[in-house]
Amino acid sequence: VTDSPTLGTSLGTSTADSITVQGYDLCNELIGKVDFGDMAFLLVAGRLPAPAESTMFNAVLVTLADHGLTPIALAARLTYTGAPESLQGALASGLLGAGNVFLGIVDGAARMLQEGVERAADSSDAALRQAAQTAVSDFRQRRAPIPGLGHPIHRPEDPRTTRLYALAEEVELLGPHLRLLRYIADETRAQLGKALPINAAGTCGAIVSDLGFHWSIARGFALVSRSAGLVGHLWEETQRPIGRAIWELAEREVPYVQPERNEG
Amino acid sequence: VTDSPTLGTSLGTSTADSITVQGYDLCNELIGKVDFGDMAFLLVAGRLPAPAESTMFNAVLVTLADHGLTPIALAARLTYTGAPESLQGALASGLLGAGNVFLGIVDGAARMLQEGVERAADSSDAALRQAAQTAVSDFRQRRAPIPGLGHPIHRPEDPRTTRLYALAEEVELLGPHLRLLRYIADETRAQLGKALPINAAGTCGAIVSDLGFHWSIARGFALVSRSAGLVGHLWEETQRPIGRAIWELAEREVPYVQPERNEG
Amino acid sequence: VTDSPTLGTSLGTSTADSITVQGYDLCNELIGKVDFGDMAFLLVAGRLPAPAESTMFNAVLVTLADHGLTPIALAARLTYTGAPESLQGALASGLLGAGNVFLGIVDGAARMLQEGVERAADSSDAALRQAAQTAVSDFRQRRAPIPGLGHPIHRPEDPRTTRLYALAEEVELLGPHLRLLRYIADETRAQLGKALPINAAGTCGAIVSDLGFHWSIARGFALVSRSAGLVGHLWEETQRPIGRAIWELAEREVPYVQPERNEG
Amino acid sequence: VTDSPTLGTSLGTSTADSITVQGYDLCNELIGKVDFGDMAFLLVAGRLPAPAESTMFNAVLVTLADHGLTPIALAARLTYTGAPESLQGALASGLLGAGNVFLGIVDGAARMLQEGVERAADSSDAALRQAAQTAVSDFRQRRAPIPGLGHPIHRPEDPRTTRLYALAEEVELLGPHLRLLRYIADETRAQLGKALPINAAGTCGAIVSDLGFHWSIARGFALVSRSAGLVGHLWEETQRPIGRAIWELAEREVPYVQPERNEG
Repeated sequence: VTDSPTLGTSLGTSTADSITVQGYDLCNELIGKVDFGDMAFLLVAGRLPAPAESTMFNAVLVTLADHGLTPIALAARLTYTGAPESLQGALASGLLGAGNVFLGIVDGAARMLQEGVERAADSSDAALRQAAQTAVSDFRQRRAPIPGLGHPIHRPEDPRTTRLYALAEEVELLGPHLRLLRYIADETRAQLGKALPINAAGTCGAIVSDLGFHWSIARGFALVSRSAGLVGHLWEETQRPIGRAIWELAEREVPYVQPERNEG
Repeated sequence: VTDSPTLGTSLGTSTADSITVQGYDLCNELIGKVDFGDMAFLLVAGRLPAPAESTMFNAVLVTLADHGLTPIALAARLTYTGAPESLQGALASGLLGAGNVFLGIVDGAARMLQEGVERAADSSDAALRQAAQTAVSDFRQRRAPIPGLGHPIHRPEDPRTTRLYALAEEVELLGPHLRLLRYIADETRAQLGKALPINAAGTCGAIVSDLGFHWSIARGFALVSRSAGLVGHLWEETQRPIGRAIWELAEREVPYVQPERNEG
Repeated sequence: VTDSPTLGTSLGTSTADSITVQGYDLCNELIGKVDFGDMAFLLVAGRLPAPAESTMFNAVLVTLADHGLTPIALAARLTYTGAPESLQGALASGLLGAGNVFLGIVDGAARMLQEGVERAADSSDAALRQAAQTAVSDFRQRRAPIPGLGHPIHRPEDPRTTRLYALAEEVELLGPHLRLLRYIADETRAQLGKALPINAAGTCGAIVSDLGFHWSIARGFALVSRSAGLVGHLWEETQRPIGRAIWELAEREVPYVQPERNEG
Repeated sequence: VTDSPTLGTSLGTSTADSITVQGYDLCNELIGKVDFGDMAFLLVAGRLPAPAESTMFNAVLVTLADHGLTPIALAARLTYTGAPESLQGALASGLLGAGNVFLGIVDGAARMLQEGVERAADSSDAALRQAAQTAVSDFRQRRAPIPGLGHPIHRPEDPRTTRLYALAEEVELLGPHLRLLRYIADETRAQLGKALPINAAGTCGAIVSDLGFHWSIARGFALVSRSAGLVGHLWEETQRPIGRAIWELAEREVPYVQPERNEG
């Protein structure tokens, strides 16, 4: 297309005896040398992670992979009940529910934190505390919930958050976004008079921000991670199905309501 | 549901201060301790892989993640062009094309190999060679292509296959399915009089079979792997879009054909 | 693409002041002149239906549109719960479950009937009865269920089938596929000694066959039809949500099962 | 679920010899009596349309069904290339691109018009003109494009718009939303000094608003409509495929770009 001089892709190219992905020789530099978490990092970042980065990035993917019978898992399983001929269809059906309400907290938090760090004069404690104050006031003024805070079950702390912060400290990657998130939790407690736990999705949003990813792609990593969980659910569905039982439950518990006849 | 005594899930459960996934404590046993490839293994197998298994399983996920502008990647990017509000939608749209024609070779090969190994008296060379002969004759009789053999670009060898077999030997996991696949390639050359390369999808199907997974879930790992590639494409699409250019190309190259008016 | 001389589409083309779809002028020949059922017919058949054909085709689309809380509807609603930002995602999630198990009966029956009619010497009663005998014996030999027969609730008759057959007679479109399906039901009763009702999906497969559509696209019309039902469910979900209640039900009724720890 | 006393659905329920949908007896009141457009109306509105309403609603569905090789159609076809085993998957893949950029104009326009009509003191010309002025100023101030105005090909008028307005006048359903849209076009020309055509998507958004539907479900009707177009594309793809040609075009026209090696 002559009028689009910038058309191009770095994702991959092939010759008869080689495949190149993001500038790396797939067979000689990647297969057997990097784990799949590193590969997912490379495919977006265009570079391989350093060892500490690999630890944190893999930890994010492990954290978000699954935790049971979520709406996403139920949708995938119900889809499999009707269309067992297409594993990709059942997986896609589940991923489609990984939207703003649940996994979207990852990119919502990443966005808030990236805007906050950008706004801060520097990454000193004082500057980040100031950015936290601004962020919390801003969300409260818009009466919007602060992404990454609060959890229906994990209180007063989300154990994944505790673990991820400890790990970041251990590998010396407790960056400005993770630090800002903690200040935002502190500031929220101060302004609201009650403590809300930092949840795992928020923490993961902070980590991928510290790893240099733009907030708009943060959800992508949550989706890759959750696809592994959904494959686990679909395998379990073939062995110990629940799809038809959920259907029966729904039919039993949700009555038909006769609408008023209102002729056109 | 009282009449379904076997309803149950092992995928996950939560208490206020813990999450358990497939019997493992997420925070203390998994996050920061296993890589994401191992997590994907656990979510289906219900156990963590041994180190050599982890090497091979991660190698499969790295191998299948991406290699450029496939139909799958194009579909995801075109979907993003029209619906940038939903990253999960664009990813799902791409995964839906990971069907029988391309990624389906992974489970097609896995099925052929698992049926062959089961049919073989034991896993001796002689027994596997015999199983290979039976399999090739069977596919030829049904005039069906042998899954895992042949490639439009990678000839006479698929470099990923070479690398994966070397790796399997290195970590001492060259199991009966990988071996059978090689005998099937030999037998095909003998019966057809021409050599077809073992392709990467077929090799990956053999590896997950040697790792103990049922062929019917093999495609699931290909989907997890490819989801990372698609997220890479979608990030690139935000930075250097090609969706509209593909659209223009299609409109330019595919003419409108006036159908014969054939009144009902 | 020089080596594909047959590239082309009849779906549509535009100039500054006209749009042409399948050879028809959209603005002057279709909008306000044909109903949407006719439009769906045209888009596949490349011609408009005659009045009696329009009646039967619309009847099929009306029949299959919805009947309550199916697995498909539940999946769409659960997806909406997590991703209310994307109506197209929730709809797509639901449609993905319209596979071989439920809506696939439409094309399964259409295939059986088209193969039967083709096999029959002519469309006389005797020839169709013979074709029915062959078809039933064939399915019984393969121990496969006969598509289009049987229903868990609608016994001894599916009221939709009764209505559709009466309508076909009324508009004089009781063609060989509808007739063959009735002979197949008779023959099944004779061979099995018990009556199975002809279900609505099977009847719809027969009707689209009589209308001249290939069995492989029959499911497409079921999908168009069901998309209207799913949009109804999604609108209801915004007004009177059940997604979270289904989730709670599932969590309450499906216990976590601790797997045996089986170290790698 | 005892704490959700309002759980319920009006979509459908069944007994052995009847199916009820939105309060109507499917077999006796709908099949053979209403066309599929009316059925789609009923499934959301909970009532059947009056004759003039049926005309306008069917006209919307006919208008939006298809017009050629859009990104949506290309995605569906590319998905079919890789996964011909799942028609529902290819359809879903295409629908996922029916997002904010293209079909979203329908609900964007509907929203603007419903907010405008609500804001207007009454539906007199003067009040609507005033609402138009407010709306245009508001969009210009936010530097947002006015949904429903402008078209890359159809200038100075979109012929579908001309036809739909004439039809509305003919059946006496030129309601306040259609009228307001025309005032908004006038006001835009006055403020910008250049004329933008009212496009078909905007007009359809106005019509469904005049029919009483909430803007948030307007996209749903566009999706039902487009699903018929996509089934047309998929049938054509089985007869005269373009998927592989598009893939080759993309590979030929989009070069691989070697990224700078930037070690982690």
